[in-house]
Amino acid sequence: MEGEEFKVAAKEMVDYIVDYLTNIRERRVVSEVEPGYLRPLLPHAAPDTPDQWKDIMTDIERVIMPGVTHWQSPYFHAYYPANVSYPAILADVLSDALGTIGFSWNASPACTELEVVMMDWLGQLIGLPQEFLFTPGGTGGGVILSTASEATLVALLSARSKKLKELGHTPISDHPPLVAYTSDQSHSSVERAGMFAGVRLRLVTSDEQFSMRGPALRQAILADIKEGLIPFYVVGTVGTTSACSYDNLKEIGEVTREFGLWFHVDAAYAGSALVCEEFRYLMIGLELAQSFNFNPHKWLLVNFDCSAMWYKNSNDVVDAFNVDPLYLKHENQEGLLPDYRHWQIPLGRRFRSLKLWFVMRMYGKQGLQAHIRRHVSLAHQFENHVKEDSRFEIFFPVTLGLVCFRLKNEDNAMNEKLLKNINAGGVVHMVPSKAKDVYFIRFAVCSVDTNSDDVKISWKEVKKQTDLLLN
Amino acid sequence: MEGEEFKVAAKEMVDYIVDYLTNIRERRVVSEVEPGYLRPLLPHAAPDTPDQWKDIMTDIERVIMPGVTHWQSPYFHAYYPANVSYPAILADVLSDALGTIGFSWNASPACTELEVVMMDWLGQLIGLPQEFLFTPGGTGGGVILSTASEATLVALLSARSKKLKELGHTPISDHPPLVAYTSDQSHSSVERAGMFAGVRLRLVTSDEQFSMRGPALRQAILADIKEGLIPFYVVGTVGTTSACSYDNLKEIGEVTREFGLWFHVDAAYAGSALVCEEFRYLMIGLELAQSFNFNPHKWLLVNFDCSAMWYKNSNDVVDAFNVDPLYLKHENQEGLLPDYRHWQIPLGRRFRSLKLWFVMRMYGKQGLQAHIRRHVSLAHQFENHVKEDSRFEIFFPVTLGLVCFRLKNEDNAMNEKLLKNINAGGVVHMVPSKAKDVYFIRFAVCSVDTNSDDVKISWKEVKKQTDLLLN
Repeated sequence: MEGEEFKVAAKEMVDYIVDYLTNIRERRVVSEVEPGYLRPLLPHAAPDTPDQWKDIMTDIERVIMPGVTHWQSPYFHAYYPANVSYPAILADVLSDALGTIGFSWNASPACTELEVVMMDWLGQLIGLPQEFLFTPGGTGGGVILSTASEATLVALLSARSKKLKELGHTPISDHPPLVAYTSDQSHSSVERAGMFAGVRLRLVTSDEQFSMRGPALRQAILADIKEGLIPFYVVGTVGTTSACSYDNLKEIGEVTREFGLWFHVDAAYAGSALVCEEFRYLMIGLELAQSFNFNPHKWLLVNFDCSAMWYKNSNDVVDAFNVDPLYLKHENQEGLLPDYRHWQIPLGRRFRSLKLWFVMRMYGKQGLQAHIRRHVSLAHQFENHVKEDSRFEIFFPVTLGLVCFRLKNEDNAMNEKLLKNINAGGVVHMVPSKAKDVYFIRFAVCSVDTNSDDVKISWKEVKKQTDLLLN
Repeated sequence: MEGEEFKVAAKEMVDYIVDYLTNIRERRVVSEVEPGYLRPLLPHAAPDTPDQWKDIMTDIERVIMPGVTHWQSPYFHAYYPANVSYPAILADVLSDALGTIGFSWNASPACTELEVVMMDWLGQLIGLPQEFLFTPGGTGGGVILSTASEATLVALLSARSKKLKELGHTPISDHPPLVAYTSDQSHSSVERAGMFAGVRLRLVTSDEQFSMRGPALRQAILADIKEGLIPFYVVGTVGTTSACSYDNLKEIGEVTREFGLWFHVDAAYAGSALVCEEFRYLMIGLELAQSFNFNPHKWLLVNFDCSAMWYKNSNDVVDAFNVDPLYLKHENQEGLLPDYRHWQIPLGRRFRSLKLWFVMRMYGKQGLQAHIRRHVSLAHQFENHVKEDSRFEIFFPVTLGLVCFRLKNEDNAMNEKLLKNINAGGVVHMVPSKAKDVYFIRFAVCSVDTNSDDVKISWKEVKKQTDLLLN
């Protein structure tokens, strides 16, 4: 495919995706295919000679679309948002054409330098404490990682390395029995990070607001120390996946100071809301953390992947895994700018800061705030629909874009049945969660284009399925 | 930015990147900026209200391009290729618009199902042993990961988990003293994987062909066992980064069988060449491995990131880190199709198999073979230029697209000086490496569009800088 042919194909593809996103309400939000549907639709092997572009375009509707669950549909209320935006797509096209692999400053200076500045812009936009930003002579700074899972893992590994150095150990398999902590409400990726690193992970019992509190953490730490274990790392969550609850960062931060532990804050979903001043109270105590992460690829209009991670002392990360072969060395590596390969798990990296740059510029601070506020207000609209129906209860207070609700006088099994019927209806899509053994349904405002009528339609479907189930 | 505005902007961007790639020879391949160049070119913070798209387009040349080292330039001979192609860019646009996060089959079935079939297509294309492919009732199969670093790490962690289970241990910090092995020529990411996992990594001395051999590995293993260590994992490399040398997979595989170790093969760069039958001899012995990885995003015209990983027994991976919260559970998870979240470090994942699909279809097997063969022949062209100049020697036999050369009668310092001058000249870009304390210069054929004239120009520049240095 040469340049001129590509231009024609690209126009077709651009028209196709605009049409897709504009008319997405006409598609069934959840795919109805059975496992194994796709293989029979394709040849057994790659073709020997090139196919025609027009056949590929045709196959998108024939092969792919039947199996797509439409994450960008206004009737998709599952998990959390995975926002896409046109400016971010344009940035990806540019990044794809440059094809730079920015593992070091030298490998393509613009790739590192734009990321440094964008992470400062983004940090300022969400009101991060100054110590997390790049400052001349300082040690703070941000980096774009793939996901919150990677952020939690990198922070854990850095904390492990730091603690082992303090103890005079090398980071190998016969190191002392380290133990990390997080809430019983935290994301499964924290538990996985513990598994990857081969360390104990203690799930601290949260309070009745599903919040990890200082005293409970302190008690767990003391019990472990008594057993001969060595605490080293704590993950606090701002906006859990299960119910969007909030750990008490201030209390936790004080405990981590008392015991000399690394404190990482995971705000994967809720972090985007911090662009609005009225939600900044959610991060009181963040100044006590060593590292902070949130996902602009969830709720801030930046296409996946773009997970924003900041450190107060980036040396702790760089020192943890520094491997420096000659083929990656360059003259400027002792300089002012980071070699981001030391800040992440992979070596290679795309030019992802272009997405942040395009999105922050094309929306502006006010545009991003309006997006967040609109979603929060739609969540409250749904909350009010729920409250007006006496068969339901709101399971947990709504602060951002997630509404947790359930049939009030019914058991878990009946609520599970309701959700199953809702999803089978094909009009809307939601997923469940459970906290302290209570099953509930999660309604997340996800699509950028969701409007008040969409929320009414979603609620109408919930009511319809409830009527059918209970009558 | 609405759909119609996006269409106009996308046309501008598409025209811009076609122009960029078509006329890339006119740009200086290596950026000349000094560290810190970019920040003064931008405002101190994100704008309050939206910028104009036209200003962003203008800023690409003003802010970004001065700091870009052009990886797609035919004069870029550093590292290894990071191919981009128009079909892959089109696939990324579609993936961006869908915005599905395919962590489970249920999250968007097409995302998982296309990946399953594409990994089979790709496996067939490179002649992988059947056991690595998905087969009904079998345990083999492939997955797209981010990078070879992730592949090496996932395999290591799976191997660790497997070994600890065999020993009756749980995978926590006080486990027994495990030890992994790789060649002293292997990529730095293997060493990093050992650090991440907190296990010993032994670098086995390679032979005079920079190849890890069975007897040397066996000796290292026996010595460690004598010391009370527990071997569990070996990484063999097909096409090292340093000199594109090859470990002896057959000998290594037999040793790993003898001691019950997990054998992972890293063919990050060289794997793409296996689409040509004449290079399949490089993977003799691969049938003895548990896992195999190569990067289509290096040399097979698929944009970064797309790292292809296959397992003979995927259960070993799934069992290693299985965490299963309710909000990720679904009805089909015991089914025929994998939940890829268990196969990787992050949770989220893009619809990357679209890139493989578009590229394999738009090039066809023959087109991909022609691409590889053309690059290999250009490497031999450069090799011949070097051989015709008596001041130089070929440091290591050329098999694929890498030529390792040096000034024959000069010391390391003089060779280092030559490379420094070559890069300062701004016409071509190369990086060095060192093996057994000998410094050499690496000439990698990288750009998709490199032709014979480009190679002549690159060689002319090497000669010119050599004349200047030695006369």
